[in-house]
Amino acid sequence: MDKSRIFDIIKQKNSFLCVGLDSDIQKIPTHLKKEKDPVFAFNKQIIDATHQYAMAYKPNIAFYERLGAKGWESLAKTMEYLEPLRKDLFLIADAKRGDIGNTSKQYADTFFDKSCAGLEFDSITVSPYMGQDSISPFLQYKDKWAIILALTSNDGAYDFQTKSLSEEDNTAYPLYQRVMETSKKWGNSDQLMYVIGATKAFTLAQIRMIVPEHFLLVPGVGAQGGSLSEVAKYGMNKQCGLIVNSSRGIIFASSDKDFATVAQQKAQSIQKEMEALLQQYL
Amino acid sequence: MDKSRIFDIIKQKNSFLCVGLDSDIQKIPTHLKKEKDPVFAFNKQIIDATHQYAMAYKPNIAFYERLGAKGWESLAKTMEYLEPLRKDLFLIADAKRGDIGNTSKQYADTFFDKSCAGLEFDSITVSPYMGQDSISPFLQYKDKWAIILALTSNDGAYDFQTKSLSEEDNTAYPLYQRVMETSKKWGNSDQLMYVIGATKAFTLAQIRMIVPEHFLLVPGVGAQGGSLSEVAKYGMNKQCGLIVNSSRGIIFASSDKDFATVAQQKAQSIQKEMEALLQQYL
Repeated sequence: MDKSRIFDIIKQKNSFLCVGLDSDIQKIPTHLKKEKDPVFAFNKQIIDATHQYAMAYKPNIAFYERLGAKGWESLAKTMEYLEPLRKDLFLIADAKRGDIGNTSKQYADTFFDKSCAGLEFDSITVSPYMGQDSISPFLQYKDKWAIILALTSNDGAYDFQTKSLSEEDNTAYPLYQRVMETSKKWGNSDQLMYVIGATKAFTLAQIRMIVPEHFLLVPGVGAQGGSLSEVAKYGMNKQCGLIVNSSRGIIFASSDKDFATVAQQKAQSIQKEMEALLQQYL
Repeated sequence: MDKSRIFDIIKQKNSFLCVGLDSDIQKIPTHLKKEKDPVFAFNKQIIDATHQYAMAYKPNIAFYERLGAKGWESLAKTMEYLEPLRKDLFLIADAKRGDIGNTSKQYADTFFDKSCAGLEFDSITVSPYMGQDSISPFLQYKDKWAIILALTSNDGAYDFQTKSLSEEDNTAYPLYQRVMETSKKWGNSDQLMYVIGATKAFTLAQIRMIVPEHFLLVPGVGAQGGSLSEVAKYGMNKQCGLIVNSSRGIIFASSDKDFATVAQQKAQSIQKEMEALLQQYL
């Protein structure tokens, strides 16, 4: 899937909402726990209820791994369930992987090549700390994306990401800007996106000077406190350029039998807000 | 397991060798491929052949994930097989994880709490990019370790890790040193180790000024070209303070039916070299 196809889906759905499938076994409604595969049963209902309003889904791999082999089966079944819908969806493995080239190649195979682990995502989140050769194996896959952590939504972002890196010419930039400046040369804007936390929306205008054309994956609206209207105001470009994620704020809005209906209401309400923002800024 | 117990094992085995179980299904000997679980069959023979010479094992999670649910079963069986030996072994999940706190907690549960995914490692490798709250959930587990990426063995280490970060007092250090200076306050040297690539052994003397007491996990000897004697010369402290990993150089030294015997010879030869180095420097 390329950038213009993602923009087409956004226009078609009037939405740049990604629903995060952080399907925590400890938080899913009690009545689902008697199901053979509670996580998959939960995901199925969430997908049915929200796919009309979402242009992307983002399973957070940690919540599946935590259940071992069984969790990987739930993940594979979830991807299978999304298959008939996927022409109008962008699918993100939120895995934050990154290792030496030989190992990153395995992770790329895991998440992009269905014949390996039964999964075929469109994209994966990756950590930049280990540099180019830790990310290039993901870019070898045609029509697939690496979404590089730049400025994350958590407090820990201030430990290293925002610290000043000096360049050889004595100019200084925060590490996250250096990550974007350097890594945008590793691929093009049809292969690379960046993670920018919604809680740091104030930086988006500056970020757009570095990566005017790239899509940004923006988590942290909702439970983490980021503002959607600020994200759109400072971050939107001519092809929208934003995929805004909400996880807990949608999928765990109710922990009762009505969870899917409430998730639908939450997703629809965000989609309506997004529709207005798309009209305002595009 | 605490630092002094790790040192006891090193003294007992006269070895600070970690065998990396990067058990690539594409590289294991052909005759094993007819086994029901080829990866587990391979690991079993490697463990039998090498455990006398190794004080640690480090499954590289990417190679298991690549096989999906089946790979996670191979990993769980491998850990089960190591169980009777583990009082004299340090077990490392080479996973390079790191995410916002709520998600890192899931990864900690995955690799440390056997009731979750059937795994109980002593330690896990983690990426520092997302800062303190991405690593602290791993430190909540008693007697468990987070092994933080500092200066890695690959070329990509020069993209960001070695770039100069300026401090508020206008002094400047490379990012990897800043990572160590900052993160060593997040826990103690019975909880935290650092990854330092053997290919950067020349930096070890300086690193020892920052973290004199910490254990370092050193990959990159062997296939990646690092030198064991240089690592020992510049990196060893009074409690050894080094765990040196070799993966491909041992487990894939032969791709034939004699793979376990050859792996044993390789492990033994490294152990002999380590025994001499321990005598020389301790």
